Amino acid sequence: MFTLTFQSDEQIPLYQQLYRYIKDEIESGHIQGGQRLPSKRALSAHLKISIITVETAYAQLVAEGYIVSKPGSGYYAEHFIDNPACDDAGAEEEQPACPPADIQYDFHTNRIDTSDFPFSTWTKLSREVLSERSEDLLNACPAQGTAALRIQIAAYLKNFRGMEVSPEQIFIGAGSEYLTGLIIQLLGRDNAYGVENPGYNKTYQIFSANTSRVFPIPMDEKGASAEAISGFGINVLHITPSHHFPLGIIMPVSRRQELLRWAYSREGRYIIEDDYDSEFPYTGRPIPTLQSIDRNGRVIYINTFTKSLAPSMRISYMILPPALCQRFHNRLGFYSCTVPVFEQLTLARFMEKGHFDRHINRMKKIYRQRRDLLCQTISEGRLGKIAEISGCDAGMHLLLTIHNGMKQSQLVSCAAAEGARVYGLGEYYSFPVSDMPENIVVAGFSGLNEQQLILGAAALERAWAP
Amino acid sequence: MFTLTFQSDEQIPLYQQLYRYIKDEIESGHIQGGQRLPSKRALSAHLKISIITVETAYAQLVAEGYIVSKPGSGYYAEHFIDNPACDDAGAEEEQPACPPADIQYDFHTNRIDTSDFPFSTWTKLSREVLSERSEDLLNACPAQGTAALRIQIAAYLKNFRGMEVSPEQIFIGAGSEYLTGLIIQLLGRDNAYGVENPGYNKTYQIFSANTSRVFPIPMDEKGASAEAISGFGINVLHITPSHHFPLGIIMPVSRRQELLRWAYSREGRYIIEDDYDSEFPYTGRPIPTLQSIDRNGRVIYINTFTKSLAPSMRISYMILPPALCQRFHNRLGFYSCTVPVFEQLTLARFMEKGHFDRHINRMKKIYRQRRDLLCQTISEGRLGKIAEISGCDAGMHLLLTIHNGMKQSQLVSCAAAEGARVYGLGEYYSFPVSDMPENIVVAGFSGLNEQQLILGAAALERAWAP
Repeated sequence: MFTLTFQSDEQIPLYQQLYRYIKDEIESGHIQGGQRLPSKRALSAHLKISIITVETAYAQLVAEGYIVSKPGSGYYAEHFIDNPACDDAGAEEEQPACPPADIQYDFHTNRIDTSDFPFSTWTKLSREVLSERSEDLLNACPAQGTAALRIQIAAYLKNFRGMEVSPEQIFIGAGSEYLTGLIIQLLGRDNAYGVENPGYNKTYQIFSANTSRVFPIPMDEKGASAEAISGFGINVLHITPSHHFPLGIIMPVSRRQELLRWAYSREGRYIIEDDYDSEFPYTGRPIPTLQSIDRNGRVIYINTFTKSLAPSMRISYMILPPALCQRFHNRLGFYSCTVPVFEQLTLARFMEKGHFDRHINRMKKIYRQRRDLLCQTISEGRLGKIAEISGCDAGMHLLLTIHNGMKQSQLVSCAAAEGARVYGLGEYYSFPVSDMPENIVVAGFSGLNEQQLILGAAALERAWAP
Repeated sequence: MFTLTFQSDEQIPLYQQLYRYIKDEIESGHIQGGQRLPSKRALSAHLKISIITVETAYAQLVAEGYIVSKPGSGYYAEHFIDNPACDDAGAEEEQPACPPADIQYDFHTNRIDTSDFPFSTWTKLSREVLSERSEDLLNACPAQGTAALRIQIAAYLKNFRGMEVSPEQIFIGAGSEYLTGLIIQLLGRDNAYGVENPGYNKTYQIFSANTSRVFPIPMDEKGASAEAISGFGINVLHITPSHHFPLGIIMPVSRRQELLRWAYSREGRYIIEDDYDSEFPYTGRPIPTLQSIDRNGRVIYINTFTKSLAPSMRISYMILPPALCQRFHNRLGFYSCTVPVFEQLTLARFMEKGHFDRHINRMKKIYRQRRDLLCQTISEGRLGKIAEISGCDAGMHLLLTIHNGMKQSQLVSCAAAEGARVYGLGEYYSFPVSDMPENIVVAGFSGLNEQQLILGAAALERAWAP
């Protein structure tokens, strides 16, 4: 039987660890094609893990073609073929290259540390909601979400962001991706939508999947500008002013006002303000959101709990100006709210009792320490002479401009060879630009603990300044 | 202080009862404009309900303009103006007419009885998942949903629907509405989509919100036909073959095969099979789904747990043919799964332990009894002479053709005057047709208990055959 040791302090779920172990054993030939695997029950007892964990691992292996299920008989290893995904001649588009297998330090920009999530508090509140509100948990809630959660969000925005928002302007949905799709339905697919270039790749993908009229907006040192938009006939602009992804720009008030004037100057112009990183500012006083300085109902504000709580909780919200609230109820009010009532009520209670504020403050402290540690380790080592750090006044990532003669792809591949993954800035351009910087990489620090950050920085040093 | 009595056996949540009570008191003038309402804490203690219940009721009253919150002071009744919603001159479209307030028996077609939901089992499993799988609950799951749930759905479909589906063909999403939007993104907005006319209004609304090319397909006694589609240049057809809504047609095998031949006869043609009511067939042997007799990968199957479990749980799934799975991963794989991992794992365990099967069987029995009771009560009374019942071989609603000289609108309004709500068949036509029947109403029976059904049928009798 298998003899793997689970690493309980790792963030990798047990089933993933099991799946990877068996996959490696098959790829390396330790488990041979045709060999029968242990039954789920036997393996569960042997490894002292739940059957469902084994099932999940087996299911993933089946899905990827490493093993097959023979009904009434069990699971058998397939004869291993190198890179089976590439055999599929029917695939319409190219497969992404397989990632190198030995990355130990992934400076991912979209990973948060869930080990500090107050899980026992969350489960306690979950239990309370389960036992106190059984009726509410079964009946459908209003299309825009439960009043209980919308009230808490409005109170939070008032206390921590200085925003005056009524709960009836708030619309809850299963993720910012989903809400962005709703906004396109609300405003109309025929608008010309502008997205930041570079920017969050998913934003461009979502707009592309929902409308054919999406245009890349070049950035200057303050973000998108009215001048940059003017050439495209844009009437809806999507921006991340509180901390631009990936450039890290915090848009100054003057530029925010310039964009609002742009929106006011013609009917039907709107700004979608994605405030995804706003919970984690590190320096200076927070700048008012566009939503809060908008006087003409032209800003749609989006934010998410995915980054501030946990990726598995698909809860985001948008704030619509009153005229668009009315339009939403008229045109899209038939849609059911996509977030289960249970999650909404648990989160409402979590916020009401002050746990959300405390959690955000704790994580802000942790992320700031990580940022400082990474910056310090880089500055004080050999990298200090060739690396410029920028874009780290907020959020969960920073930019490294490396002056050692290497270009982006070489920076990324040399880092990978030393076990560290960073991301070339060029990856975030939906459209290439002529003056694209060639020696900048993006490094997230929120998903790595202190030891990993120190070792990861050392790996970068070996790669770039040996 | 208020003196309302909560009706604990009703399906109306406590906050709704409180909200309605206060609303009525304001409208009737018992609470006067400017009068201060009890504090949330005081009212919660007085009525022995949770503060969050009071908060939710107050929030709804604030949202609708019945009361205002004065920070640091409390809640005050607004000066009541008749029908404030209609005062809003900025509203873009017309408001629907306010429903009569005295409906006691709502034969709603989209309501399920949650009083028989095994809530204590569900909460027990929820607690197990919370305590056993903390890591999994925080990390993001695959875009198409957790393997654990997909495995259970595949097993269910095999055992109860005779469908051979691999878990990797299954995609979990927060409701059929959301999945339908994804399908349009997957197949392309430029296709010509056909929807049944009459049909489920939301289906037409979702397609309209996502594409400009949606066409109404007329029905004959077997449902949509290849001939009916031919005039529109349709290449994607959305149908409800297991129990057409609202006509109640169960599409015969011959027609299913005809539609498959239609799909096979040209590249890029697809059928979306919405199997929403399939868990509740009452007569005859179930007919194989189009998905299971499709040999060329042209059927996309959708089903939901909203109707079989509870409306508050937004869990649906679709089954894609292999080529579309690949296309999904390539084009839309960036989307996160919209259903929280916690709900997915709880449902997976609920299914794994056999609770889902037992619940479906129990509800099928209950709904069949309700259907039989309603049919019997109608047939044996004075209505028996003037009413024809049809469309009730499956699902949660039936059609009543009434031969008393009344037209649809009169049938509906006379029923409402007696306290019963039924729905004119004409409401389900997205496009009017010339031969629209004028004396047919739709009555759902799943949301009313036995006593309500008997009293509701008596109300219909008073209305239509006095």
